[in-house]
Amino acid sequence: MITKNKIKLIKSLARKKNRQQSHLFVVEGYKSIRELKNAGLGIQEIYVTQDAKELDDLEVIHISNKEMQTISNQTTAPGYLAVVETVTTSELPVEGLVIALDGIQDPGNLGTIIRLADWFNVKHLICNHGTVDLYNPKCVQATMGSIARVQVHYMDLKEFFSRTKLPVLVTEMEAPSLYDAQLPKNGILLLGNESNGVSAELLKSGSRISIPSYGEEQEATESLNVATATAIILAEWRRSIGK
Amino acid sequence: MITKNKIKLIKSLARKKNRQQSHLFVVEGYKSIRELKNAGLGIQEIYVTQDAKELDDLEVIHISNKEMQTISNQTTAPGYLAVVETVTTSELPVEGLVIALDGIQDPGNLGTIIRLADWFNVKHLICNHGTVDLYNPKCVQATMGSIARVQVHYMDLKEFFSRTKLPVLVTEMEAPSLYDAQLPKNGILLLGNESNGVSAELLKSGSRISIPSYGEEQEATESLNVATATAIILAEWRRSIGK
Repeated sequence: MITKNKIKLIKSLARKKNRQQSHLFVVEGYKSIRELKNAGLGIQEIYVTQDAKELDDLEVIHISNKEMQTISNQTTAPGYLAVVETVTTSELPVEGLVIALDGIQDPGNLGTIIRLADWFNVKHLICNHGTVDLYNPKCVQATMGSIARVQVHYMDLKEFFSRTKLPVLVTEMEAPSLYDAQLPKNGILLLGNESNGVSAELLKSGSRISIPSYGEEQEATESLNVATATAIILAEWRRSIGK
Repeated sequence: MITKNKIKLIKSLARKKNRQQSHLFVVEGYKSIRELKNAGLGIQEIYVTQDAKELDDLEVIHISNKEMQTISNQTTAPGYLAVVETVTTSELPVEGLVIALDGIQDPGNLGTIIRLADWFNVKHLICNHGTVDLYNPKCVQATMGSIARVQVHYMDLKEFFSRTKLPVLVTEMEAPSLYDAQLPKNGILLLGNESNGVSAELLKSGSRISIPSYGEEQEATESLNVATATAIILAEWRRSIGK
């Protein structure tokens, strides 16, 4: 059983403005809810359908399939939906590998990059203010729970770069190959917007790298998806620094 | 101006059954249509909105923004939509790098993998019959035009593996690291379903590899998205065989 007011609140969280005002977001799926709980995030309520399996120790509210479909952001509701408190990110990174994003627009791309960060032990993502919101339902979904383990900061990248001692690797199509570069033990990988790449004012923030293309034909694709590019560079970075 | 019958036809192409019967599919966006045309695909009709820029030598039909939104598969129609003839794939590969997909379900993942294949000069993708349809609008969109340059075959993978002389690399979570393997000059990379990985009957089709994880915490993410995994392995494969 769910009240009309609760339905209204949950549906309102599809909008960034409402998430920011209430400091709440929605996550769906058994595994994602478990991971957020394990990571210590504040979970306000968990809604499950009648036929869903139990969430062990967690207190749940049973609702009908129809009610679940009303509040779900997904075409086929997975049967578990939680209202979770957003996280206040704390200190900025001073070592390790860090990812900086300049204007990523697609929530699925941001979510996939957060999942990659988790895999490659990148603890911090720094996004400039033009980057899509972390708590967008499609982003939360694509992180597959990794949102609980990666700190995402929103701030002015130019200012951050001017203050940090970490070297910056700027990805850019025409830059020298990643494989010819000396990748540092600690540093920041900067990736740009899906259509335009890294913006002009940030292009000179550090040394530039690119992923070589092997297409034979002149017409071969001109670019990689930003999440797949992130995957390739992080894997090579970890491999080459030997940990 | 577009007739009701044409609208009906185009909307019907959102379904796989109708695409298979008519041997037609829909592609949207200026760049994608240009690339399909350049690759020699048969384009039946191109619809553009009044304010769209010209497609040079290509004959177009002007329609209103409202008509375009009716026939578009996208939330915000890009203003260019073409009806294109599907391609009959010809001979199977006997050399080079090949990708085999066992039951990929997400059209965006398949499209991203096709775009990656184009980048890394992989000319053939072999999908078993349980894999999502290549001409699904979300897949066509995610290929960003690369669909014109990569041959995608649908067939029984077990039978194909029994006939081919190419070695198979099977991706599997518990397998030895990719970086400890001797990657062959020619071969097939096999990737599995998003949830279940490579199916049991195909797991022994060749030597097994995995991508090492660097997460420190026990709870770190258990898997990578299949398209990002493909990206990492293809990049390392091309790098290690030196072309």
